[in-house]
Amino acid sequence: MPALDFFYFFGSAYAYLSVQRIGRLAAEAGVHVNWRPINVRPLMARNNVALRNETLKVAYMWRDVARRAAHHGLPFKQAPIWPTDPTLLANRVGIVAGQGGWCEAYTVASFRAWFLDGQPLGTRESLAQILGPLGQDVDATIALAETPECAARYDAETEVALSHGVFGSPSFVVNGELFWGDDRLEEALLWAQGRHAVQNNLRV
Amino acid sequence: MPALDFFYFFGSAYAYLSVQRIGRLAAEAGVHVNWRPINVRPLMARNNVALRNETLKVAYMWRDVARRAAHHGLPFKQAPIWPTDPTLLANRVGIVAGQGGWCEAYTVASFRAWFLDGQPLGTRESLAQILGPLGQDVDATIALAETPECAARYDAETEVALSHGVFGSPSFVVNGELFWGDDRLEEALLWAQGRHAVQNNLRV
Repeated sequence: MPALDFFYFFGSAYAYLSVQRIGRLAAEAGVHVNWRPINVRPLMARNNVALRNETLKVAYMWRDVARRAAHHGLPFKQAPIWPTDPTLLANRVGIVAGQGGWCEAYTVASFRAWFLDGQPLGTRESLAQILGPLGQDVDATIALAETPECAARYDAETEVALSHGVFGSPSFVVNGELFWGDDRLEEALLWAQGRHAVQNNLRV
Repeated sequence: MPALDFFYFFGSAYAYLSVQRIGRLAAEAGVHVNWRPINVRPLMARNNVALRNETLKVAYMWRDVARRAAHHGLPFKQAPIWPTDPTLLANRVGIVAGQGGWCEAYTVASFRAWFLDGQPLGTRESLAQILGPLGQDVDATIALAETPECAARYDAETEVALSHGVFGSPSFVVNGELFWGDDRLEEALLWAQGRHAVQNNLRV
């Protein structure tokens, strides 16, 4: 079965669109998704990008996310709390979730809590609301997320993403081919299936 | 007839895709296109973006443009000379062309010369190759492009774009609604037609 690496950050606006879409689309395409949280902040800093300072771009981003959500038939009420997860706790819980095999469920629940329930990410309160329905113990999970081993694993995942040229969230990597942005989700799935125009020499 | 402002920069990689696509798509959609060259460099500098320094992003950009060209059935051979048009002469000729009513033809010919013929933009030699088949005199055109009035008009056009929140090329503005990137061309045309999901309250 072809596979695709889905690199994303808890706190990335555009990742909401992909988190809501990728499960169904990948299943329809017969592609396995590896859900891989990464730390996008140092990746963007390498390119001297401090998004929260780019006023016009940020304003545009929320409008664009709202339009794309409507375009895709996804729920959207208003821009969520942003930036969020200041200590990266929600992200590191994602690493714990991945080791436990429940990263997809945790991620989908987190982005819904963030976008649709007005929750910040990375607080004990929001984690309790997210982890409870997943049957996960919030204090045990947070304890694991706060270990040096978990932080090291999160950094290592980020290094893997960097090795593929990733510079933002969400990104998709398929056999070393990088696709950036929710707009490229369909194209990344075509690539995983070997059906992209480039792969089939459909050149003019 | 609904209208759309197409803001772009001679020297913008992604603008190639839109320049090649917008004529046919807009005609099919019954939307009039205003071809409006702008100076994207100060717009990007406002957001502290110096794209040529963002190594990973630039490498990604050329790969992405090649894939999108294949995806859309557009010709693409290799990455063009970039950056280009260092003195903005090609851009200012665009302003002259707009005043003469031949901006679309000049733009399409320029981007083809740049992407497909390996020409730099903004040299007298490349302008001669571009302007000749359009029946325009190269020296007379350059003389007009180098007047203070032309420079002022180019700056004024850039200010108009900025007033709409434009921060990059290509961008599309429809009744004050901003869409950034070739990926948003279809959506911008839907908006011009009043057929976008947001405009029709197709919310979940």
